[in-house]
Amino acid sequence: MRRTLFTEDHEDFRHLVRNYLTRDVVPVYDQWRSSGLVPRSLFTVLGRLGIIGVSIPEEYGGGGQRDYRYNAVIQEETARAGVTLGGLRTHLDVVVPYFLELADAAQRGRWFPGLASGELYSAIAMTEPGTGSDLAGIATTAVRDGEHYVLNGSKTFITGGHHADLVIVAARTSTDPDNRRGGISLLVVEKGMLGFEVGRRLEKLGLSVQDTVELSFSDVRVPVTNRLGEEGQAFAYLGRNLAQERLAIAVGAVAQTRAAIDQTIDYVRDRKVFGQALAQFQNTKFELAAVSTDLEASQALLDTAISALVAGELTGADAAKTKLFCTETQGRVVDRCLQLHGGYGYILEYPIARLYADARVSRIYGGTSEVLKTIISKSLGL
Amino acid sequence: MRRTLFTEDHEDFRHLVRNYLTRDVVPVYDQWRSSGLVPRSLFTVLGRLGIIGVSIPEEYGGGGQRDYRYNAVIQEETARAGVTLGGLRTHLDVVVPYFLELADAAQRGRWFPGLASGELYSAIAMTEPGTGSDLAGIATTAVRDGEHYVLNGSKTFITGGHHADLVIVAARTSTDPDNRRGGISLLVVEKGMLGFEVGRRLEKLGLSVQDTVELSFSDVRVPVTNRLGEEGQAFAYLGRNLAQERLAIAVGAVAQTRAAIDQTIDYVRDRKVFGQALAQFQNTKFELAAVSTDLEASQALLDTAISALVAGELTGADAAKTKLFCTETQGRVVDRCLQLHGGYGYILEYPIARLYADARVSRIYGGTSEVLKTIISKSLGL
Amino acid sequence: MRRTLFTEDHEDFRHLVRNYLTRDVVPVYDQWRSSGLVPRSLFTVLGRLGIIGVSIPEEYGGGGQRDYRYNAVIQEETARAGVTLGGLRTHLDVVVPYFLELADAAQRGRWFPGLASGELYSAIAMTEPGTGSDLAGIATTAVRDGEHYVLNGSKTFITGGHHADLVIVAARTSTDPDNRRGGISLLVVEKGMLGFEVGRRLEKLGLSVQDTVELSFSDVRVPVTNRLGEEGQAFAYLGRNLAQERLAIAVGAVAQTRAAIDQTIDYVRDRKVFGQALAQFQNTKFELAAVSTDLEASQALLDTAISALVAGELTGADAAKTKLFCTETQGRVVDRCLQLHGGYGYILEYPIARLYADARVSRIYGGTSEVLKTIISKSLGL
Amino acid sequence: MRRTLFTEDHEDFRHLVRNYLTRDVVPVYDQWRSSGLVPRSLFTVLGRLGIIGVSIPEEYGGGGQRDYRYNAVIQEETARAGVTLGGLRTHLDVVVPYFLELADAAQRGRWFPGLASGELYSAIAMTEPGTGSDLAGIATTAVRDGEHYVLNGSKTFITGGHHADLVIVAARTSTDPDNRRGGISLLVVEKGMLGFEVGRRLEKLGLSVQDTVELSFSDVRVPVTNRLGEEGQAFAYLGRNLAQERLAIAVGAVAQTRAAIDQTIDYVRDRKVFGQALAQFQNTKFELAAVSTDLEASQALLDTAISALVAGELTGADAAKTKLFCTETQGRVVDRCLQLHGGYGYILEYPIARLYADARVSRIYGGTSEVLKTIISKSLGL
Repeated sequence: MRRTLFTEDHEDFRHLVRNYLTRDVVPVYDQWRSSGLVPRSLFTVLGRLGIIGVSIPEEYGGGGQRDYRYNAVIQEETARAGVTLGGLRTHLDVVVPYFLELADAAQRGRWFPGLASGELYSAIAMTEPGTGSDLAGIATTAVRDGEHYVLNGSKTFITGGHHADLVIVAARTSTDPDNRRGGISLLVVEKGMLGFEVGRRLEKLGLSVQDTVELSFSDVRVPVTNRLGEEGQAFAYLGRNLAQERLAIAVGAVAQTRAAIDQTIDYVRDRKVFGQALAQFQNTKFELAAVSTDLEASQALLDTAISALVAGELTGADAAKTKLFCTETQGRVVDRCLQLHGGYGYILEYPIARLYADARVSRIYGGTSEVLKTIISKSLGL
Repeated sequence: MRRTLFTEDHEDFRHLVRNYLTRDVVPVYDQWRSSGLVPRSLFTVLGRLGIIGVSIPEEYGGGGQRDYRYNAVIQEETARAGVTLGGLRTHLDVVVPYFLELADAAQRGRWFPGLASGELYSAIAMTEPGTGSDLAGIATTAVRDGEHYVLNGSKTFITGGHHADLVIVAARTSTDPDNRRGGISLLVVEKGMLGFEVGRRLEKLGLSVQDTVELSFSDVRVPVTNRLGEEGQAFAYLGRNLAQERLAIAVGAVAQTRAAIDQTIDYVRDRKVFGQALAQFQNTKFELAAVSTDLEASQALLDTAISALVAGELTGADAAKTKLFCTETQGRVVDRCLQLHGGYGYILEYPIARLYADARVSRIYGGTSEVLKTIISKSLGL
Repeated sequence: MRRTLFTEDHEDFRHLVRNYLTRDVVPVYDQWRSSGLVPRSLFTVLGRLGIIGVSIPEEYGGGGQRDYRYNAVIQEETARAGVTLGGLRTHLDVVVPYFLELADAAQRGRWFPGLASGELYSAIAMTEPGTGSDLAGIATTAVRDGEHYVLNGSKTFITGGHHADLVIVAARTSTDPDNRRGGISLLVVEKGMLGFEVGRRLEKLGLSVQDTVELSFSDVRVPVTNRLGEEGQAFAYLGRNLAQERLAIAVGAVAQTRAAIDQTIDYVRDRKVFGQALAQFQNTKFELAAVSTDLEASQALLDTAISALVAGELTGADAAKTKLFCTETQGRVVDRCLQLHGGYGYILEYPIARLYADARVSRIYGGTSEVLKTIISKSLGL
Repeated sequence: MRRTLFTEDHEDFRHLVRNYLTRDVVPVYDQWRSSGLVPRSLFTVLGRLGIIGVSIPEEYGGGGQRDYRYNAVIQEETARAGVTLGGLRTHLDVVVPYFLELADAAQRGRWFPGLASGELYSAIAMTEPGTGSDLAGIATTAVRDGEHYVLNGSKTFITGGHHADLVIVAARTSTDPDNRRGGISLLVVEKGMLGFEVGRRLEKLGLSVQDTVELSFSDVRVPVTNRLGEEGQAFAYLGRNLAQERLAIAVGAVAQTRAAIDQTIDYVRDRKVFGQALAQFQNTKFELAAVSTDLEASQALLDTAISALVAGELTGADAAKTKLFCTETQGRVVDRCLQLHGGYGYILEYPIARLYADARVSRIYGGTSEVLKTIISKSLGL
């Protein structure tokens, strides 16, 4: 159905993104896949084009658009082109919003020009080995010593950690055992700080050009001026952007679901079996009709949720429902699309195989389906 | 999520419908169930209230609202009240639109006042024993004899046939074997015409107050002035309203899905098992979170489709997707809700048991899921 | 695949049952459906044929076969014939085993001849309004008064309660609040005892010839000689036969699944749509291939479990897995088979509609799927 | 439930295999994964142990056990150990049976000693780029030239092609256009033959130590004495072993399903979230109960099918049902198990992530689920 979400400005931006991807990314994407990384230069190119800095205020050289629909356009277009841009989604949809919301004037001056130009790339480090998504269990410590915090601990599953110039680290600044939640603060660790090590890249099922690493901190001296927001307030901060973070995953899920269906339609039209195009079998038609229907529902739900987000009305429970539905649908749809590819669906040079491998994480990161159901059930009064 | 579909006028109408149902239908509904019929007087009461004639032009005493959202409100409120109004949905959403679109001036004068007041109730007779939904296979014949057609044949699965004063019958007016589609016309048979018999009520799995009957026609003389539209054009006419007919089923499906979830939430809060409210079990919470999520997707898709219908943009394929998704979701959700009721879910005095029995037809009537998939796959170019 | 479960003796018994059903039940089954009951005479006929008393010792006129496979044969054949024999399954598979295991010599003498001949028909009354399947919550009391217990309370969901001559009632014989489980005993209430009332038949979604009633007991004086087993031991007794009770439901589920598929294969071969037999559509073929596959798995699992039961090796967890799998499969398969019938699937004169309505209770009674999962997870050490 | 399939001899063999895997494979398996290949020496070690040659007649140094249960044991144990042995399953379950059935006396003398000792490793080449599993479309040609065939063409998706010493190639020896099926023969191409090239290894979603390659043949001169069986009979030969080939995939699927569940049970017992073991959440218990139940059904169906195979009774349709059910179940179960691992499920060092990636091919190779449904529906008379 006709979407009513985007204005002409968004469509102009879409055009810009699409052209860049088609011309400059698609032709070299296999090299990125082989190296398991996007090139560092990607971000400065995206800076020059006004893509990476779209949400940074104009006074710092950014686009000044705090409208999530621009972020959505980027994801829709990367999925459409059959590529991913490493951890860019995390940088844009998850990390940059913390800077936008919490940076004080001095920090804005130091970091925003680089975030606008792509010279500064960012990551966020919450999860620790053993604690999972339970923030109250954070064991990394930051002990105040004059104008510094001395940071010790380790983090894992850090998207973009390989390239990151700035890493927002959630660390315990108070060890009061009665206040497990209240003692956590956000510190910005900069590449090159002594004692900050980027560990090995984790070998993942999919997302092959997205670096996911472990980080370790041994007596890293972080200036107090690198603290984002108030001391001890991290818990509140981390929850504040969750609705958008989850919606962002849903946007990716829906865009990739669409890409999977589009590729499959092309494939079944071309592919002959037993002397007939695969598209002519009733099973093929019914499968594609079913998945297109599921996609339409995902898109309708997602667009309703994005409208609510833009209007400042999206609740946590509604974001959770949207992520849950769109990612569960993605899982089922991509699986059915792969099946229609037969043996080729298992070969990674076919985009459908990569879409399948990538899709599996959607139901896990940014809140597993189980975490989301817990949130939703609370909103039902259960 | 907040729905944006309805205006204040619709909400006023909703208020009217809700009050009537609560005060006058709910208290006597068990009697209706026992008799397997709504009382004939229901329609004239709905006429007096301005409900049944909402779409009939004001000059004939109707509400003059050719806005499908009023119809949607009626369905949402009946589901919310835990009742059905017999075949009223079919009368309003399927049959009346034929009169509105095809009746000539004389016919409007004869029938519209009654349709507005509820004194005339209508049904449509397409399906025949053996032909199913394949219109080209219609065997009922209408042979022209002067100013009459002589009608012979039989029809089955006729919703509302017991009460109907006017039955639109699809009959073959040309026996040209090369033009199976072109020879079908629509004739309005009136209650009491000689040779028109209403057969037995079919015993159905659910929809217990909706009469579904067989009709037979033996040399019924139908005046030519009772023909709706042009001779031989029925095939085109019958397709024209299909998008709305299917959307109407989706509206009912979503409203009943919502009712099922609401009742289940109430039930699990009250019900204790092994000393604990059922609502406190994680499985209960997760099940209800999952079905609420599916409902949210159904509602978003449906509201998008209704908006498109109101804007005159809804395609057949999009209506098909909407019905397919909303009814398949209904089937799964109502099943899960019933399960949470345990043994009580199997007892018909519990509304959930009736919702389950009623739901099974949604995936069948108005185009089975298989017919819909065929339509959708064509729209994908397959 | 070829089943290896049955011997020639079982097949002879099968032949007997099949002949009886074909000749004497199928022709009158619609009358049974209309009355909502099997005729009382059914049981004595089944007695004369040696069917109802197959498990009663030969010295009392029974068949002397304590081999569950005979019970399985009865269920397979009733499903095959498209009928149900009221609550006979409960009498044979659930209630009679209590008599066989617990009756003392005097009780055997009083009751076994009637159980063998079909003159005595039995039911068991555990569930109470409000307590569900939680035995510890039983509120019905039996207070010792000399050589009688004075019984007060009410029971619900009692299968076969309308016809039953003997009802085994679980009642509280000790009110020690520290021993909720230990104070329950089994008393046999006989039809006609003063103060014993059979209440209304519950209107169910399906199982239309099986009477399910409420029972009430007001100062019913039950002789102590009517107590089955030791006082206060009911809790242990009630758990002892659970594996077979659950297996019995699985047997019915698999037999009805098979019946649904067989009928659907016949239907799709006959039924023409758009000029082609429904059987020729790939979707029809794939649906039937899928459900036949699921049936094969159900049958293999069930036969393995029956073999284990016969060998005295079936654990509670394995019985739970078998019931869970076979009934969940039944639910999905019968739904898909009904769908292939289109509108006819919704009309109760078609057996598939009744199979659908009947199937819904399988996942609930004899332990809901949720209760079964709890049992299974314990066996996994969780 | 207790399995009754294996004798003590099989259990002794199991012990041998298990010891070898635990001691010699598990410790070095990560190296195999990194290199994307098993070491060539694996096969000779397995030869020395009597594992790889278990089915080769004793006179050639093999174990003389043409009993499929030995093959099943190997697969069960590799899955249990969390490893795969490259394409060994294909060698043992698919290729060797052709040699056993078709080799003439001279060929037995030349090849069987090597097959027994592991010095000869084999592959089979049917699929071609573009034809998929449609044998009638084979374009590779073998033109007779005196005592040789001159072989030209290319093959793809060849499991074990990297290591193979002997490749059975299906090629067209007659170009009679009226006999697309009748003109195909099987030729054994040996490593090192001029014009025989092993192409690149295909990068797959999973099965990371199994080499899957493309092969090309340019004027390869294959002696007529290397033809397996009669000229022009390949079509019949290729169908003959299909039941066992499919069963073999089902065996692997079930064994891997079991491994996934076992690992998940261990994981949820260890893993704490929000201060509680994951195993204590009702959702965890219910998920594991559900998947264990599905596994039990798979195992029962599979063991029934293996018994039938051993008895020489297994039909093609029953093998198809078994593969379909066991692999579809594997897909669903492994997905649910991975989900319970959260983010760790996406990291390839966790066996569950590899089981997930490996599982996806089960529904595709050896006959896709769609091909199997076609076979099954034929057996239903559709």
